[in-house]
Amino acid sequence: MKPSERKKMKHYYKVDEWRIIEEGFDPRHHEESESIFSLGNGHMGHRANFEEKYSGKSLQGTYIAGIYYPDKTRVGWWKNGYPEYFAKVPNSPNWIGIYIKISDEELDLNTCKVSNFIRELNMKEGYLYRSFVARFKSGKQLEVQAKRFLSMAEDEIGAIRYAVKPLNFSGTIEFIPFLDGNVLNRDTNYDEKFWDVLDAGVKKENAYLCARTRKSGFEVGYSMTCETLLNGSDVKPVTEKIQKAGFAGFSLKINIAAGDEITLYKYAAILSSLEHKPEELIDKSIQVVNKAAKKKFETLFRDHVAVWEENWSHSDIFIKGDPAAQQGIRFNIFQLNQTYTGKDERLNIGPKGFTGEKYGGSTYWDTEAFLIPFYLSTEPPQVARNLLKYRHKHLQKAIENAAKLGFNQGAALYPMVTMNGEECHNEWEITFEEIHRNGAIAYAIYNYIRYTGDKDYLAENGLEVLIALSRFWRQRVNWSDVKGKYVILGVTGPNEYENNVNNNWYTNKMASWTLRYTIEAIDLVMNEHPSNFQRIIKKTRFHYDTETSSWKDIIKNMYYPMLDERGVFLQQDGYMDKEQRMADELLPAERPINQHWSWDRILRSVYIKQADVLQGIFCFEDEYTTDIIRRNFDFYEPRTVHESSLSPCIHSILANRIGEVEKAYDLYLRTSRLDLDDYNHEVAEGLHITSMGGTWMSMVIGFGGMRIKEGKLTFTPNLPRKWKLISFNIQFRERILNVTISEKETSVKLVKGEKLQVEINGKLIICDRINHQ
Amino acid sequence: MKPSERKKMKHYYKVDEWRIIEEGFDPRHHEESESIFSLGNGHMGHRANFEEKYSGKSLQGTYIAGIYYPDKTRVGWWKNGYPEYFAKVPNSPNWIGIYIKISDEELDLNTCKVSNFIRELNMKEGYLYRSFVARFKSGKQLEVQAKRFLSMAEDEIGAIRYAVKPLNFSGTIEFIPFLDGNVLNRDTNYDEKFWDVLDAGVKKENAYLCARTRKSGFEVGYSMTCETLLNGSDVKPVTEKIQKAGFAGFSLKINIAAGDEITLYKYAAILSSLEHKPEELIDKSIQVVNKAAKKKFETLFRDHVAVWEENWSHSDIFIKGDPAAQQGIRFNIFQLNQTYTGKDERLNIGPKGFTGEKYGGSTYWDTEAFLIPFYLSTEPPQVARNLLKYRHKHLQKAIENAAKLGFNQGAALYPMVTMNGEECHNEWEITFEEIHRNGAIAYAIYNYIRYTGDKDYLAENGLEVLIALSRFWRQRVNWSDVKGKYVILGVTGPNEYENNVNNNWYTNKMASWTLRYTIEAIDLVMNEHPSNFQRIIKKTRFHYDTETSSWKDIIKNMYYPMLDERGVFLQQDGYMDKEQRMADELLPAERPINQHWSWDRILRSVYIKQADVLQGIFCFEDEYTTDIIRRNFDFYEPRTVHESSLSPCIHSILANRIGEVEKAYDLYLRTSRLDLDDYNHEVAEGLHITSMGGTWMSMVIGFGGMRIKEGKLTFTPNLPRKWKLISFNIQFRERILNVTISEKETSVKLVKGEKLQVEINGKLIICDRINHQ
Repeated sequence: MKPSERKKMKHYYKVDEWRIIEEGFDPRHHEESESIFSLGNGHMGHRANFEEKYSGKSLQGTYIAGIYYPDKTRVGWWKNGYPEYFAKVPNSPNWIGIYIKISDEELDLNTCKVSNFIRELNMKEGYLYRSFVARFKSGKQLEVQAKRFLSMAEDEIGAIRYAVKPLNFSGTIEFIPFLDGNVLNRDTNYDEKFWDVLDAGVKKENAYLCARTRKSGFEVGYSMTCETLLNGSDVKPVTEKIQKAGFAGFSLKINIAAGDEITLYKYAAILSSLEHKPEELIDKSIQVVNKAAKKKFETLFRDHVAVWEENWSHSDIFIKGDPAAQQGIRFNIFQLNQTYTGKDERLNIGPKGFTGEKYGGSTYWDTEAFLIPFYLSTEPPQVARNLLKYRHKHLQKAIENAAKLGFNQGAALYPMVTMNGEECHNEWEITFEEIHRNGAIAYAIYNYIRYTGDKDYLAENGLEVLIALSRFWRQRVNWSDVKGKYVILGVTGPNEYENNVNNNWYTNKMASWTLRYTIEAIDLVMNEHPSNFQRIIKKTRFHYDTETSSWKDIIKNMYYPMLDERGVFLQQDGYMDKEQRMADELLPAERPINQHWSWDRILRSVYIKQADVLQGIFCFEDEYTTDIIRRNFDFYEPRTVHESSLSPCIHSILANRIGEVEKAYDLYLRTSRLDLDDYNHEVAEGLHITSMGGTWMSMVIGFGGMRIKEGKLTFTPNLPRKWKLISFNIQFRERILNVTISEKETSVKLVKGEKLQVEINGKLIICDRINHQ
Repeated sequence: MKPSERKKMKHYYKVDEWRIIEEGFDPRHHEESESIFSLGNGHMGHRANFEEKYSGKSLQGTYIAGIYYPDKTRVGWWKNGYPEYFAKVPNSPNWIGIYIKISDEELDLNTCKVSNFIRELNMKEGYLYRSFVARFKSGKQLEVQAKRFLSMAEDEIGAIRYAVKPLNFSGTIEFIPFLDGNVLNRDTNYDEKFWDVLDAGVKKENAYLCARTRKSGFEVGYSMTCETLLNGSDVKPVTEKIQKAGFAGFSLKINIAAGDEITLYKYAAILSSLEHKPEELIDKSIQVVNKAAKKKFETLFRDHVAVWEENWSHSDIFIKGDPAAQQGIRFNIFQLNQTYTGKDERLNIGPKGFTGEKYGGSTYWDTEAFLIPFYLSTEPPQVARNLLKYRHKHLQKAIENAAKLGFNQGAALYPMVTMNGEECHNEWEITFEEIHRNGAIAYAIYNYIRYTGDKDYLAENGLEVLIALSRFWRQRVNWSDVKGKYVILGVTGPNEYENNVNNNWYTNKMASWTLRYTIEAIDLVMNEHPSNFQRIIKKTRFHYDTETSSWKDIIKNMYYPMLDERGVFLQQDGYMDKEQRMADELLPAERPINQHWSWDRILRSVYIKQADVLQGIFCFEDEYTTDIIRRNFDFYEPRTVHESSLSPCIHSILANRIGEVEKAYDLYLRTSRLDLDDYNHEVAEGLHITSMGGTWMSMVIGFGGMRIKEGKLTFTPNLPRKWKLISFNIQFRERILNVTISEKETSVKLVKGEKLQVEINGKLIICDRINHQ
């Protein structure tokens, strides 16, 4: 897309507080809209592909949680330690398809003339709606209204209401609702097919399809059934089965007159071998879909909406007076809620969720660093706990991964990108060197316990993970004679615009903190859960004295690079040798530098992709005075180009922390409408799901000023000039609270649960029904 | 190959001073032998593939100088600045083929029983000889003797003498001499065919073939003809033409009795569009081959041997009392002479020469750093000069390459790997960061002038290159406020086991030296070639005052990392933060570390792949006292694992420089028989052609102690205990000299040319016929 066209993209979608609306069909934006209007329900999801045939440019995407294809690694030059495969998210068999034919013409928005096109994502109720009039070459005009949803109440069910009305002709309309296993991925290393269709056919009222991923052997069973109404009354179309290779469906032919409306309801059940025995997939999917069809569309939809209503009750954020910001934050929350529901500890949150194939894998450090806070505050504790348990389940694989890189004695290095615990990523400077992810995983345990108070988690799962992480750090540091300190060489920090640097402050800090927290955790479990402690000691072959004393030695003698005596931490040893240019000295034509500068030039520049030292200060802000935080912010913010979606949120939070509210607002704008306004013009590939947690943080932790101190919720809110009032719902220790912040006052209202003491701007408040400051 | 088998490989070939001999056929070693017994003549070359069919494992390889296929870049993750393609050396149509059939049996050493097998590379005369007895399944036994060479006298000609003798049967023998364009590369990124055959057929006595490389459009024209003798007398076989897709040849059938010998002479002409118009290739190749055939095999061979005789007269090295070392050094010299003859300034020396496909490209910094000295001393000056002109011809491309990476105003960055001046390599840490190659290119100009005295080269070509290189360095340094010096950040030095380091001493030194030498060169050209100077000023838009003064500022204020006050230079800023382990602390099972350690572990280790600081000391040894050289050698040698073929030679030379002769000998052994003994068990892929220049250097510069000081040859020789005498021939300023070093004395004999003053161990000698020290 050219820059001139880019401009037009801004606010391509209509601003509305609860909906995303596209008016008029522009095929140039179709792939973007396919991402934006994606639906999901935790178990599965899909891009907003059309039900009917579409011969124009489209990225077809149907995804099922937890299923992956191990795509053989592709590199230019092999480095020892590279993984064998990259787990790709497979585009799965299509279940939404409904071909529409009128005589010898087929409905295809790429060849028909389209008018009155509206596409709408209703975030409050979680459905996709589309209506248009298509004019065929013959001049025939057909009005279509389509609505679909993936049930949040019954997560194996998807349902579509597809209504057509001939406007100026009478005749036979043929519907072909189908299941199709002939699907491909765009993101493949060797142009391989990821699926084998094992079976596809029709049994009575049901079409079904069973497919298996190659190599990884996941199986899915799909079934569908349908129902047709003519002007609201049941009608029996002339029905034929269609059974082709990898394809099953029906041909339904109905004669109608101009002005009549035929409505097709298509119900589908999408089951996978993660939940069912492979051999039962077809039968079970038929049972599930027939049960759903009996309930009918409207009942299914009502149950679905009820779940969304419940979700919004503890996760909504309201912004008064800024509809674009309002739409932005709700879009972020909506996407997070439909990507991960926390029911299954085998699942995690992929960078594109159910909205695209890119980046494959499912789990990056994003989960621990940017998503845990959202799920902690908007869902019951078991949701975040499942995300922690996910890593616990992968501990053995993380130990094996570390062993592959030369570590031993139970040291664990969690993968940079993973599906099943095995490393997938293959850029040495990231895969092997971006080891701070190990810190984020420890921090997430701490963060979970801090928020929920659930210290028992340490005894059950957390401590084993912490010990393995600390063992890694002990082996990964080395003593520098010249510095007389422990150093950590050859790392990539959160700022991926520096590779293979020495003593990244954030990494050193995370390492040392992990060692300290592990010792605390050991002492806690030893005292409070002695039998669990014995079990862990035995399992991990832990030597308390030698191991903790070597950790203490490292904690005491860790090297932290400093810029000056006044508390500016240095990003890494060589940072000040760089030419000190500020981001505002870059020409507009050079930005983003990752698209305009060669990689070596980026690496030796001072420019920071995303919060690095500031990420550390965000994590450990209690350790630093406001003055030190300000000094570091003032040093790093002008050098930061925010070319990661994960960057502005942290800066925005810290700007709020030091009272620079308008700066915080500017930074917030970069994150909240990133996808809706397609800032990086890459939304066609899918949404930035994981950065949405950062957006949420910049609202609640940033403007809301929410913290947990000694088990107590505290708020020191700030409002930018533009906002008159914000209000958000959170969960906290079996309560639902509503926090409302206006220019004049901050109130914390108890929506559900028992009364609670909270702190607002340093004042303790008993929060019962409504408390005013 | 398993380690136990590896052992057997050592001295798999018989030691002989002039020949490489394989006795007995072992298919497990066939691909290794195909490399070892390769032939070339500067214009073309090939691996020692069999003429007859061979259904066993084989790497087919026929290569034509200067022809490449631009294979689309393959990487895991694209980085800005990566090149579009990697220039691959295409396996070219096969011209050696001669199928042999007896009734319904075909000669194939993979299916026949083989006895009395001998394969021999005669280095003195430059031919490949093979003889064996093959026993067919039927029990028939055939004796074969085959000899072939690629004419050094007429470099488009190859000739084969293929004699067969039925030992125990009579009947019809069918020979099918052919040309075959149906060839593939093993080294392709996307399994593509590199060649299209445009035409293949038979005209009278000639079979011909014309083929074109895809994308790059190089064309080759091959023709062949043949001649048969029965027991030494002409015989007319029953002849049929064979014309198939991409294949042309003859079927020649002859009835013979047991004990009779039939000899087939096959002559081939291999022409390319680098020398001929594409439309004339077929006709010309027919003319060329018919002219050669008229001369007959023996005459062609005599002319060929005469060239080798001449070659050896000014490049041989004789070692008394160490036949394995003798064979090793001659093998190195032989390969260098058959890879590059210096006739064509468009050509260069690929890392595998004509012995394999791997690494593609043709030109690495190896040429300037490791090969120029060999060609300077063993060939007339125009050979080395052509290597310099090769870079001069690529100057514009090097300027474009630098521009692509963000440099401007005529700054040049020469590519890491290239065929036509465009960058091919695609590992960011090497492609973009191993910029010291720019220093080697400047140094080669200096080295050439130092050796030949040909200062005019600066005015003609050299200065333009130097200016562009210096402009690069000026833009590549940056001022460090904290150091108060100019620094060079984000480089990879010669030691590729460190990436993206700051202030690599070697690179900083090379940069500063290049600036200084460029200023000297400017002043020289300004004074001695004023009109050329004006031309260059205009062409390069050179601003004398501003540019040279900024260069002087950098020279004066360049930062050089130091280990201590006593003159140990520090490899790079962070080197001393590493754990200081010595190479001898590595377990045998860990070596080579590049096969046993993960890449990140290698990077943060102290271990050095190849001479780095020591490479700089080698280049500028006059600047340092023996004490400083020793301190640096003593510091770096124990940390060096020599896992590059280009490493031991430099260490060997410096060991000699500081009087550690036996250490120098140990290091020499690692380089001279690297391929013959397959130290790295990778010889099957081809030979390490470029490191052979290093072997030569370690003999002549190392043990011979040869230097040029103020235009004068000087020698300070050392002999290891094992050697009683070494003797080598060199060219120097229109003379051929023989240098003989024994335990007792060193003599420099004038073989050709006018008398000359040389210095031996500090004493001036007039070298006329024989001079003794």
